[in-house]
Amino acid sequence: MTYCLAIILSGGLVLASDSRSNAGVDQVARVQKLALMPSAPDRVVAIQSAGNLATTQAVVTTLTEAFGSGDEESDLKRADSMFEIANLVGGQLRKIVARDREFVQPYGDPSASFLVSGQLAGERPRLFEVYSAGNVVEASSRSPFLQIGETKYGKPILDRALSDDRSLGEAAKLALLSFDATMRSNLSVGPPIDLLLYAADRIQAPAIVTVEEDDPYWTQLRKAYSEGLSALVASLPPPPAAWGG
Amino acid sequence: MTYCLAIILSGGLVLASDSRSNAGVDQVARVQKLALMPSAPDRVVAIQSAGNLATTQAVVTTLTEAFGSGDEESDLKRADSMFEIANLVGGQLRKIVARDREFVQPYGDPSASFLVSGQLAGERPRLFEVYSAGNVVEASSRSPFLQIGETKYGKPILDRALSDDRSLGEAAKLALLSFDATMRSNLSVGPPIDLLLYAADRIQAPAIVTVEEDDPYWTQLRKAYSEGLSALVASLPPPPAAWGG
Repeated sequence: MTYCLAIILSGGLVLASDSRSNAGVDQVARVQKLALMPSAPDRVVAIQSAGNLATTQAVVTTLTEAFGSGDEESDLKRADSMFEIANLVGGQLRKIVARDREFVQPYGDPSASFLVSGQLAGERPRLFEVYSAGNVVEASSRSPFLQIGETKYGKPILDRALSDDRSLGEAAKLALLSFDATMRSNLSVGPPIDLLLYAADRIQAPAIVTVEEDDPYWTQLRKAYSEGLSALVASLPPPPAAWGG
Repeated sequence: MTYCLAIILSGGLVLASDSRSNAGVDQVARVQKLALMPSAPDRVVAIQSAGNLATTQAVVTTLTEAFGSGDEESDLKRADSMFEIANLVGGQLRKIVARDREFVQPYGDPSASFLVSGQLAGERPRLFEVYSAGNVVEASSRSPFLQIGETKYGKPILDRALSDDRSLGEAAKLALLSFDATMRSNLSVGPPIDLLLYAADRIQAPAIVTVEEDDPYWTQLRKAYSEGLSALVASLPPPPAAWGG
């Protein structure tokens, strides 16, 4: 399984992806699920992947190698908007799945989904989800985050605490807490976490931060959150005596 | 959808079930998913239900009406242990599904699952899950809670804060927070919440508490938790400046 989260804020983007790939308990590997397209002066494009690993790698590698090629169906460098880029990713997904489906299906599900985000000069930062069907939806300030993969465990903390006026740092903190909740409750999502904080209008790709399990900040954050939560729960009033117990 | 939670503690049991039944957005009803078997001097038996409503009602109603009948396959009053009771529920489920499957499948999934808990005089309180297949697993102090239905949103708070040495009141508080997380993130789980706190060795059924959406305690609990969580998150350190943002 996989957990990928992308947050869109008035100040930019926060992206986070786990690294666990498992095709069974005895075949566990670390893979990168957050990819940056090659750098270009007028655009930053990130793609986060969930689903069949061969499918996601085929899509991302094809698009990386076609970047700047001028090809109408696969060159993300010649696209005029993030909307067009998200649709090109969806188109590439359809092509790969159509090619591989009949061969892969006897062994498993060939499908995949993506979060596509970034900024083109002249546009605001934007964030899209590309469904397995290849169609796309865009996030907005009313729903400032999108998730793919194992999404449920990490959703409550975001529903409670995230709004699009958060700073990138605050949102990154919430993203890591969302991953902590997911990884505590589900073994199929694992470290390290690839994290990317993109400040709006920089139009250049920042470095991806790889947060390892023993990262000092993440260790401190998890410990402080756990202790704080225990203290908070303990401080809340008990149920009325009439309820029994 | 449904969310049912059962917690087993050294001091007893805490059971909670939501009340939403929906076969589509225009057919939303409130149903009771936490049932107590008729009272008996030597046993307390509770059954929580998830899945196809016709199936769960057929199982629970059949077992309620057969209570005390002496029937070998359906009388929970003559069973010698909670283990036997859980297996009788599983057997009844298999019988109903075998009878209805071919008629129901054109319209939807006939399957169901249950949490079966309670205490027989001479046994400690016990808690079982009855899978759709009719087989059963028992909770223990190492995994002191079981969930059926929409289980993921409400699991992190339990994984973090629940242990089997909690008091019934503390566990009920955590159960309600788990429901709050689920109901905020998923519209298919809805109030009221049926809640039952059973203190070990009473061997008599306590009253089920129906926690409505505007219940003063629950309102206070949710507000205090939300505010406390926001303050906690704000108090946590921001990510290192080197991570960008």
